Amino acid sequence: MRRRLCRAVVCLAALAGSPLMAQNTLNLMPVPAHLEIGTGQLVVDSGFQVAISGYSDARLEAAVERTLVRLERRLGVGVTRAKLKGPPDLAVEVQGPGQKVQTPEEDESYTLTVTPQGAVLKAPTVVGALRGFETLIQLLAQQNSGFYLPAVSIADAPRFPWRGLLVDVCRHWQPVEVIKRTLDGMAAVKLNVLHWHLSEDQGFRVESKKFPRLQELGSDGKYYTQEEIVDVVAYARARGIRVVPEFDMPGHTTSWFVGYPAFASAPGPYSIERKFGVFDPTLDPTRDEVYSFIEQFIAEISPLFPDPYWHIGGDEVTGRQWNSNIRIQKFMRTNGLRTNDALQAYFNRRLEKILEQHGKQIVGWDEILQPDLPKTAVVQSWRGVEYLSQAARSGYQGILSAPYYLDHIKSAEDHYLADPLPVDSPLTTEDAARVLGGEACMWGEHISPETIDSRIWPRLIAVAERLWSPASVRDVDDMYRRLSITSLELEGLGLTHEAHTYRMIRQLTGARGVGPLHDLLQYVEPVSFSQRYRLQATTQLTPLTRLPDAARPDPWARSRLNRLARQAVNDRRGSAADSLRAVFALWRKLPARYAALADVPLARDGDPAVATLSRLGTVGIEALDRLTSSAPANPAWTNSVRAFLDNASGPQGMLRVVGVQAVRVLAEGQ
Amino acid sequence: MRRRLCRAVVCLAALAGSPLMAQNTLNLMPVPAHLEIGTGQLVVDSGFQVAISGYSDARLEAAVERTLVRLERRLGVGVTRAKLKGPPDLAVEVQGPGQKVQTPEEDESYTLTVTPQGAVLKAPTVVGALRGFETLIQLLAQQNSGFYLPAVSIADAPRFPWRGLLVDVCRHWQPVEVIKRTLDGMAAVKLNVLHWHLSEDQGFRVESKKFPRLQELGSDGKYYTQEEIVDVVAYARARGIRVVPEFDMPGHTTSWFVGYPAFASAPGPYSIERKFGVFDPTLDPTRDEVYSFIEQFIAEISPLFPDPYWHIGGDEVTGRQWNSNIRIQKFMRTNGLRTNDALQAYFNRRLEKILEQHGKQIVGWDEILQPDLPKTAVVQSWRGVEYLSQAARSGYQGILSAPYYLDHIKSAEDHYLADPLPVDSPLTTEDAARVLGGEACMWGEHISPETIDSRIWPRLIAVAERLWSPASVRDVDDMYRRLSITSLELEGLGLTHEAHTYRMIRQLTGARGVGPLHDLLQYVEPVSFSQRYRLQATTQLTPLTRLPDAARPDPWARSRLNRLARQAVNDRRGSAADSLRAVFALWRKLPARYAALADVPLARDGDPAVATLSRLGTVGIEALDRLTSSAPANPAWTNSVRAFLDNASGPQGMLRVVGVQAVRVLAEGQ
Repeated sequence: MRRRLCRAVVCLAALAGSPLMAQNTLNLMPVPAHLEIGTGQLVVDSGFQVAISGYSDARLEAAVERTLVRLERRLGVGVTRAKLKGPPDLAVEVQGPGQKVQTPEEDESYTLTVTPQGAVLKAPTVVGALRGFETLIQLLAQQNSGFYLPAVSIADAPRFPWRGLLVDVCRHWQPVEVIKRTLDGMAAVKLNVLHWHLSEDQGFRVESKKFPRLQELGSDGKYYTQEEIVDVVAYARARGIRVVPEFDMPGHTTSWFVGYPAFASAPGPYSIERKFGVFDPTLDPTRDEVYSFIEQFIAEISPLFPDPYWHIGGDEVTGRQWNSNIRIQKFMRTNGLRTNDALQAYFNRRLEKILEQHGKQIVGWDEILQPDLPKTAVVQSWRGVEYLSQAARSGYQGILSAPYYLDHIKSAEDHYLADPLPVDSPLTTEDAARVLGGEACMWGEHISPETIDSRIWPRLIAVAERLWSPASVRDVDDMYRRLSITSLELEGLGLTHEAHTYRMIRQLTGARGVGPLHDLLQYVEPVSFSQRYRLQATTQLTPLTRLPDAARPDPWARSRLNRLARQAVNDRRGSAADSLRAVFALWRKLPARYAALADVPLARDGDPAVATLSRLGTVGIEALDRLTSSAPANPAWTNSVRAFLDNASGPQGMLRVVGVQAVRVLAEGQ
Repeated sequence: MRRRLCRAVVCLAALAGSPLMAQNTLNLMPVPAHLEIGTGQLVVDSGFQVAISGYSDARLEAAVERTLVRLERRLGVGVTRAKLKGPPDLAVEVQGPGQKVQTPEEDESYTLTVTPQGAVLKAPTVVGALRGFETLIQLLAQQNSGFYLPAVSIADAPRFPWRGLLVDVCRHWQPVEVIKRTLDGMAAVKLNVLHWHLSEDQGFRVESKKFPRLQELGSDGKYYTQEEIVDVVAYARARGIRVVPEFDMPGHTTSWFVGYPAFASAPGPYSIERKFGVFDPTLDPTRDEVYSFIEQFIAEISPLFPDPYWHIGGDEVTGRQWNSNIRIQKFMRTNGLRTNDALQAYFNRRLEKILEQHGKQIVGWDEILQPDLPKTAVVQSWRGVEYLSQAARSGYQGILSAPYYLDHIKSAEDHYLADPLPVDSPLTTEDAARVLGGEACMWGEHISPETIDSRIWPRLIAVAERLWSPASVRDVDDMYRRLSITSLELEGLGLTHEAHTYRMIRQLTGARGVGPLHDLLQYVEPVSFSQRYRLQATTQLTPLTRLPDAARPDPWARSRLNRLARQAVNDRRGSAADSLRAVFALWRKLPARYAALADVPLARDGDPAVATLSRLGTVGIEALDRLTSSAPANPAWTNSVRAFLDNASGPQGMLRVVGVQAVRVLAEGQ
């Protein structure tokens, strides 16, 4: 389905990279599969009326109401719900409800036509209409005389059917309100899978009534009641989002054993793991009572999650508990299981049987790809696109996650350019069809309810576009232009990423207007998960109240400085060079101003970055001077600058400065 | 009760205004009735444990859990809920549940003792404990080594038993989430009444199943379902807050008549009133079917609101519909009702009888104070403290609202210094006891869900202190010091007032970092309701997307500039004068920088204020020069400056600049 539409119409792909790009993408993100700009505008004001013709149901009606509320927020005025007089401003024509339980086969396509006389949204399913409403809202534009929708003709459908976000609520707890606003954001950019990572060494986050010690002893009291889960799943379905639960087995299960040590492969007692990393506690795959427990647990919990898929985890089994358990070793010999991988494959087969009885297909991490894995399984690749290709060639469907780890604190650009099916993919068309899409992963070691939005957004929007839009939509400058606008739209939905840095500084320092701190935080980002983990030896009990928690990944300055640097190299003199000089001058003055924050303890986290930025400012000005003077190459200068930049690109304390790439472009650009 | 405690201990009142004030108020707001600073600190970290001894119930347990979640947000780390080992960090000792339905008689007192060994919170009721938890959270302080509670001994109880906020959800709709976060903020500053203004000419906001056309035709689809009301009332009770509903009668009822024109005093048809002001549609007080309707409506709705009080409105009846209705005129003659006031009093008596049957005492605005008003009624004074005194002398309980209208856009200082029982009150002790407290009023003409927080907070905190703390706590500088800190604590609860201005600019302009706009908005506030209404002829359909909607009342700069100006007059030269000079210089440079915003339509709203601020900067510098040079008085200069300042203190477009008072102090200070 998703590819057929692209063949039927002129794909936007043809336009990618052309000067028409910005005009033809408007501010839409993800970019639709096909878009034609029309003539004129449809006025949107407090009289805006929506009419549903054809199929309707409660989900569609609720979506119309949410759309109106969001229009109202933008307009700053109520939109009347009174009965129609005359033709509607937006006619919604849906053919049917879509799947009773949404699957990757769901038809998400829609067409949206706007003329000065009215807009028409057509979709074969309610889910398609949901996607169309998001496009409609993104089309809303403002001019002096008020709001309007530009005339357009859009025919849209996703490139990949599995476009997800993993949220780890185990290393750090995330309450329902965080999950709900995350779902709001996901729906706005047409993502369709919440992969809810619900159990870990560090916490078991779901209420079981049959095995209550799971949450009572394994969660510090922080778990979702069954009622809350039902509520979240319904909230997601209302937005056309599937919820795939993950209960990671047989490893990553320490928290299970706090209440039920008998299911482990080594004697207890166990306590909730506070450290981060890979740990030994593992389910005992050799005992029937373990499978009986799993069967009862899945019988109880699986009705809460109607999705046809169930994520079994399966990653990072150390095997140490198995190696040192004589009974397990004997079992392996008796059953001809020569390796721990073989034992895990045995466990997976039995687990898969249980899940099959409850109507579930399995998803698992790379490691589940073992002989005898049923072909209905989906392999989620955290180790790289080559593992995904291997799975596809072996006949398994797969989703890509390796390049979309949000805790790696990479740029939106990095995520954006990573493709589950790169142009140079070695896969045959048939194998390629097994690549269902991808999932960004928000692992929970270094996030709190206060910081999570700023770690997910806006970067996830770039991933959402990669997974929805044609592969040829890859213009990074245009992506950042639209990312900036879409990010503000998500703030309007209640997400906190835009207000994050100033808010965090206020909350952490108890002060307002700490100017030099604001200036610094425009030009730094947190170090990656692994860097901070190494620097600070973080655990679940480490307070997340340091300067990197106020900083945000990929601050806007990074892409702006890179753009300016490229421009300055091209133009030599000109406004780009002037803009850069102003920033470099600010960096050079920063140490003196920053020293005034002697009594703000938090500020000390920024000292190394302030020193590096100052030096970077000096180097940047030297590089600009050399550029504009066309001085002859000076290898000694270049070498010393390279050495400095290499160093400056690494962690400066718990922060990284984001101007290094731009200065490198200038320094190398002569 | 509330006064007995003050007699039993040394009141903080004795300290007010002394240099010990800041030390003895810590950062607490409202200031407790009695506080003694101890020695040492109680460490608060992820091992912080709470134990309830004595009485407990679900409300108390939920409050403990909320307290822990809020501590976690500040600490940036989870607090374990595991079972106790050793003595608790906080022992909670409550004697009983408090009233089954909270009334103004509820005992809200508590004592809180913190020593380095632990904290003990004692209260006769769960409600008292709720107040104590808020104090505990406000005590939390940070130093390099972590978080702690300072050793203190607090014995606290409110000065007034009725400390409320009116929220008008009729002129503009406010969804449940706004009401809930407002309740969170109210609880944090120990307010105890939400006065929910639920019906108006511009909207009827409650679902009636018996009379469904009330909400179906009278609300634009924006009303609370009965389920939502039950939910909100429970949410409030969990926080020790009463919910008093207001259904304004017999005037302010246009929206009722859209669905039920027969109950009006003049023939229909009616439509929802979009304009603001006072309108003629009025219930017909002469017909039995109207009372039958009211009786059935109250029978249906009153169980949703368990509070013993029911607000009948009663204000602003124009009487025009009565004057022109021959049948009503005849009824008045027949029944010896000589004036419209008498007819309204007749209506009120019958209404009161109906409410009495449903266990409700009435509250009404000033106008209900007519002969035969039952002594159980509470009079809410919107016309001034003299009307309140008159009610008290006539034997009626009363609450003050006139000086606490948040839409008048006055300063926190103005609200703070207005006292329901001023020192010079002419009331006898017995009459004074009838003054139950006060209510701030957030009228809804110019607020949206996006702006309401910034209009309520932080100013409401000053009102909360006025109504809770001893009368003698009146140090404005110390109030602002604590207001600033408490305001940030409320942001931590999820309120949006602190992030408001930048967020609104982002949302309205679609841009980040619009520097000159940020600078301007530090020094301006919106004009008052009536000023904006006159300037813009606002209606319910006027988009609230202008610069005053991004501005906030009483920005921090106002009190800071005033403080600096007083200091500069005292010191002549010195740091205060230098700080002022820097601000004045910024103002003078603003027009040139602001002109760069030519393509930001919103910015035009600021042009008059920018011009005035610039001139004010010039005058400020002249005034400082004269101060520091001790130049002889120059009457011509003084007169021209006075004329300019008088003008500058009025609306500059839809904004007012907040530096006028400070410059006046400088100009007059020679």
